[in-house]
Amino acid sequence: GAIQSAWDASAGWICVLLVGLAAGATAGIIDISARWMSDLKNGVCADRFWLDREHCCWSANDTVYKDYDCKAWTKWPWMFDFYNQSSAIFGILDFLFYVGWAVAMSTLAVLLVKVFAPYACGSGIPEIKCILSGFVIRGYLGKWTFIIKSVGLILSSASGLSLGKEGPMVHLACCIGNIFSYLFPKYGMNEAKKREILSASAAAGVSVAFGAPIGGVLFSLEEASYYFPLKTMWRSFFCALIAGIILRIVNPFGSDQTSLFHVDYMMKWTFIELVPFAGLGLFGGILGSMFIFSNIRWSRFRKNSKLLGGNPIYEVVIVTLITASISYFNPYLRKSASSMIQQLFDRCGPEDQMDDLCDYQNKTFTNNKVDDNYHTGVFGSRVHSAFWQLILALVFKFIMTIFTFGIKVPCGLFVPSIAMGAIAGRLMGMTMESLFRNIQEQDGHSSYFTCQIGKDCVMPGLYAMVGAAAVLGGVTRMTVSLVVIMFELTGSLEFIVPTMVATMFSKWIGDAICKSGIYEAHIELNGYPFLDNKGEYPYSTVASQVMRPGSARSDDSSVSNSNELYVITQDGMTLGELEVLLRETDFNGFPVVVSRNSMYLVGFASRRDVQMALHTARKTQPYVVTDSMAYFSSNVPDQVAGGPAPLRLRKIIDLAPMTITDQMPMETVIDMFRKLGLRQVLVTRSGKVLGIITKKDILQFMRNNERGIVNPNFKT
Amino acid sequence: GAIQSAWDASAGWICVLLVGLAAGATAGIIDISARWMSDLKNGVCADRFWLDREHCCWSANDTVYKDYDCKAWTKWPWMFDFYNQSSAIFGILDFLFYVGWAVAMSTLAVLLVKVFAPYACGSGIPEIKCILSGFVIRGYLGKWTFIIKSVGLILSSASGLSLGKEGPMVHLACCIGNIFSYLFPKYGMNEAKKREILSASAAAGVSVAFGAPIGGVLFSLEEASYYFPLKTMWRSFFCALIAGIILRIVNPFGSDQTSLFHVDYMMKWTFIELVPFAGLGLFGGILGSMFIFSNIRWSRFRKNSKLLGGNPIYEVVIVTLITASISYFNPYLRKSASSMIQQLFDRCGPEDQMDDLCDYQNKTFTNNKVDDNYHTGVFGSRVHSAFWQLILALVFKFIMTIFTFGIKVPCGLFVPSIAMGAIAGRLMGMTMESLFRNIQEQDGHSSYFTCQIGKDCVMPGLYAMVGAAAVLGGVTRMTVSLVVIMFELTGSLEFIVPTMVATMFSKWIGDAICKSGIYEAHIELNGYPFLDNKGEYPYSTVASQVMRPGSARSDDSSVSNSNELYVITQDGMTLGELEVLLRETDFNGFPVVVSRNSMYLVGFASRRDVQMALHTARKTQPYVVTDSMAYFSSNVPDQVAGGPAPLRLRKIIDLAPMTITDQMPMETVIDMFRKLGLRQVLVTRSGKVLGIITKKDILQFMRNNERGIVNPNFKT
Repeated sequence: GAIQSAWDASAGWICVLLVGLAAGATAGIIDISARWMSDLKNGVCADRFWLDREHCCWSANDTVYKDYDCKAWTKWPWMFDFYNQSSAIFGILDFLFYVGWAVAMSTLAVLLVKVFAPYACGSGIPEIKCILSGFVIRGYLGKWTFIIKSVGLILSSASGLSLGKEGPMVHLACCIGNIFSYLFPKYGMNEAKKREILSASAAAGVSVAFGAPIGGVLFSLEEASYYFPLKTMWRSFFCALIAGIILRIVNPFGSDQTSLFHVDYMMKWTFIELVPFAGLGLFGGILGSMFIFSNIRWSRFRKNSKLLGGNPIYEVVIVTLITASISYFNPYLRKSASSMIQQLFDRCGPEDQMDDLCDYQNKTFTNNKVDDNYHTGVFGSRVHSAFWQLILALVFKFIMTIFTFGIKVPCGLFVPSIAMGAIAGRLMGMTMESLFRNIQEQDGHSSYFTCQIGKDCVMPGLYAMVGAAAVLGGVTRMTVSLVVIMFELTGSLEFIVPTMVATMFSKWIGDAICKSGIYEAHIELNGYPFLDNKGEYPYSTVASQVMRPGSARSDDSSVSNSNELYVITQDGMTLGELEVLLRETDFNGFPVVVSRNSMYLVGFASRRDVQMALHTARKTQPYVVTDSMAYFSSNVPDQVAGGPAPLRLRKIIDLAPMTITDQMPMETVIDMFRKLGLRQVLVTRSGKVLGIITKKDILQFMRNNERGIVNPNFKT
Repeated sequence: GAIQSAWDASAGWICVLLVGLAAGATAGIIDISARWMSDLKNGVCADRFWLDREHCCWSANDTVYKDYDCKAWTKWPWMFDFYNQSSAIFGILDFLFYVGWAVAMSTLAVLLVKVFAPYACGSGIPEIKCILSGFVIRGYLGKWTFIIKSVGLILSSASGLSLGKEGPMVHLACCIGNIFSYLFPKYGMNEAKKREILSASAAAGVSVAFGAPIGGVLFSLEEASYYFPLKTMWRSFFCALIAGIILRIVNPFGSDQTSLFHVDYMMKWTFIELVPFAGLGLFGGILGSMFIFSNIRWSRFRKNSKLLGGNPIYEVVIVTLITASISYFNPYLRKSASSMIQQLFDRCGPEDQMDDLCDYQNKTFTNNKVDDNYHTGVFGSRVHSAFWQLILALVFKFIMTIFTFGIKVPCGLFVPSIAMGAIAGRLMGMTMESLFRNIQEQDGHSSYFTCQIGKDCVMPGLYAMVGAAAVLGGVTRMTVSLVVIMFELTGSLEFIVPTMVATMFSKWIGDAICKSGIYEAHIELNGYPFLDNKGEYPYSTVASQVMRPGSARSDDSSVSNSNELYVITQDGMTLGELEVLLRETDFNGFPVVVSRNSMYLVGFASRRDVQMALHTARKTQPYVVTDSMAYFSSNVPDQVAGGPAPLRLRKIIDLAPMTITDQMPMETVIDMFRKLGLRQVLVTRSGKVLGIITKKDILQFMRNNERGIVNPNFKT
């Protein structure tokens, strides 16, 4: 009794606890493996092959500056006794190994996906959105998808393709949630309850991907989940936090920081800088929209083209070849995306002497680690070359990501978007820095700006951070969750206003150019039945104008309205008639009415239930024949001796179907569909069934309205 | 065209922008005024009377330590030439002025409330919850309430009563939202749209109260708002951020910190400390529940007692007298609650030499501001006296807050809860500090703890922070929003886990003791029709068992089920019959049916509409008499010459009432009421109206179930 109820109450918590533990552990393993494999393109640790470059050099203890090689780290050409780094053969060998490893990894990834788990490809977030809205994709969250996607994700992200781990991480966490929910019958057996666990899992996925538990919860709320009760929110937070703690204990990056891209700017931003931040927002919105447009175009082309659609492996090989060959020659593309982002976000300090981006003239050194005098605003020559390298990196990254997002390996979109934004932002930041420097020199002690000569007024790293938020916002159209993720990523609460301004402008311009974010666009491309829960639909239409069958409009052929409503009467239909009805129509269910004349509603019978009941009856009840009467009412007459046996079907009908009247405004109807997660409603007038509106009809109706096509159903 | 639609799209943003600006400015003015008035109890600035003590001493430039007096600050006894602070007369005069000012301020506050705006009293959050769930309280968000509550809030919080500004600040922000929404007809004219603005305003209220924009949004989502679409979330965030920025520009506290109680602990917490944190959570849950229980008991007593209920002014005077007289003698109660909280949250540093709490022995000084060697764990004698003072403060604060929350001045609950929690937490922290110190001394270099002798392992300030979260959680039962508010308050992302653990335990134990938080308890006490949207109700009941009239249960008198359903027929009723129906029943509306025999549903007519229509008809249409037939159908026969004129009433009925079937599970019905914000549904079977379920019925049903009373309607 008491124990049972206590178990019942705590089952959900235990389930999300397990999900959090597993998600954190999985993320840790993936991070460590991907890092090791990524360095494998470059070389191997001589003594301890299981160490990645950074740990290898740490253990060898002979590096001075970060990002530099050490003797313990054996580059591939060294194995063939080519030690002279400037020789041509060394270069060629190094290049070949780099490209070869990349192609090998991505090919293995696509093979695994193709052979074992076709659902393991892509980001998974569009599908998760649909699943959380009630759509069922069998096997999408199964254990095979989990295993293959984990391995494939390690391979694909190590191959240096322009993709991120974050989307797939959310998918993996949802797989974990799905698998664990079967341990608890309360959740495993009930799709609606299971979705609560999945919402929490999605939060855990973002939490481990970015180290952002609050951002994860808000992502799950804003982007992933369709219906998010408050109880779920608290559990999601718990789940996200547990996952985050586990990941921190695993500590895949060997750092003690709470946040992934920790920044410690000492300066404050000035209000006038909001102008360039807004500019970054506009840029992000435009870039994001261009990306969505191009990527959807390309994805549609891939879908329709025999050549591409049928040969995913060749596509992956070609994309990897191009990416690896070009990335090899650009220092920013060559290093892993996350270390590039960290570099772009960073302030320059004394330890960054060798960094091209930090080649300032007139810099003074103090022994203080946080050195405000490092930035002088006067660039050295290496900054100029870094500037051009960054522009090339941005262009290349943009083009390659369009072609990469959608290939048949696990691939996310967050990190490439953040990378593009960080590059653009850093470029903007460096421009602003030199601009401010010039203004200051002209006016002497300028009173427009709070900063003084010799002190850095402009933090290029902050611009990179803001740019990252802007582009990510332009691509995904996230809002609050994005701002929260950005500040959890960077650990700086003080820069929330710049981030917010950029995200806002990015969202505004993005929505003006194309309404839907990348995930919605992919959902539409794939034709999933997803009812967007964001927009507003102040239609003047009422239900009777949308329902099927429409009220006598046989002249209209574009909308597949047949003019008859197929119903089942509660008595008086024979088994044969029912079978004919099932055979001749393909509706998912039928209203059950008192009689065809009165059409008063009794209930709703789903196609599957009727089919099953008839099938079972045919098999198990010998006296049930084609002429048997089917009774959906509770009063079933006794069998006439020798005659066909009556069939009792009352138990299969849903006696509480959702009904509306024909005068209900469509706004309310859409609201009901969204909030109650309906699949269909029956339309009645004075108690008589007139027609039915399904989720598909709603989607069709909304699409017609959006495209400005005057709906043929409109009548005022 | 385009301009109109652009205006339409941006109206919401402009509205929340204005709300944010106004809320920020209001909060700034209130903060500054309250601070000045609060110091008025103690003295006045000699040269510049408009400065509060801190600014007065800053301008005089002769203080060494924080919280100490200066010569420019004129204490009241000085005015009467008593300068000797240790003399009895000085003490008595000082005490009298302190108490006198306090009583004067609170009396003025209660007078203002009583005379001008009775709605301005209390916290306002319970009412806002109800308003956001669809309940209308006329004038509750009007301009008079706003003005009086602002002034009253300044007075009441300056009087030193045990109350906070945060709840009223949310109420004030909502008033602002309501007032500004009338500038935009789209929002002012539509209650549902207006609630979106109010949700954003509530977020702004929390944002200015705590400097926590994200926490504000989550508070609005979790606690205040009933229905929170995502569009609202982004706007709320914008509104909250604008309000926060404005407040920062006004800068009422003269500090540059982003967060209200900024902490900069340098230490990390250890995992073993999660045990005391969980203990604090349990304490918080128990204390919170005790508080709710006692406060509700006292409020009910006040409500029923003639003596108390009729004399709110005396009550306020007495409470203020007691509070002021006792607070005067306790250093922690005497200073403002927020500076006490700041002190309790703080690390001890070299600048805190004079602070009793920081009287450590064996401390070493460095010139570094952040001095890890300050805490030695060995207490001086003053710490012991501070310990006892804190215990007294906690007990007194607990008792006084019970009596204060509910008196007729603007008063919030957040700051007293945080204060109680901070005291309890600091006490626990000091205990733990000395405990750890003892353990360390015994074992020498103990390996169980990551900290070493001479370094402080335990931060008593962190315990205060965690305790604050625990008690606030126990009182309000907030979860995610609480954690986020706490970390925005303190600006420390690293202590999210301790806060979370404490909040969790606090919520668990609290929910186990009494289910509802203080706001829900007050809603129930006041009998507002609020449908809680948090719990789960897995009932096996169906709609027909709850609807009225119930199916033939006249034997049961406790539930006021009359056995007849009062309906209007769409034709065939005379005006006289309708008037009798209105007179004899007090239902808010009537189903309109085809005929009394068939009972097929046509629509729903609200009492108010019918009343108005009949009234107008009687007045303006001379031929409409008692015998006139009322037609709710569209076919109205022509007037028989000389006979009574027919009355056309079709336009007043709602042709799209929400209907359900009698077999619908109550779980689904409750879900519909919550998510769609319904007031009633009509229950049908086979198209015939059987009864009606109103929001009140649902509330009654849920209450009966919760209390374990077997509902007389239960039949299986």
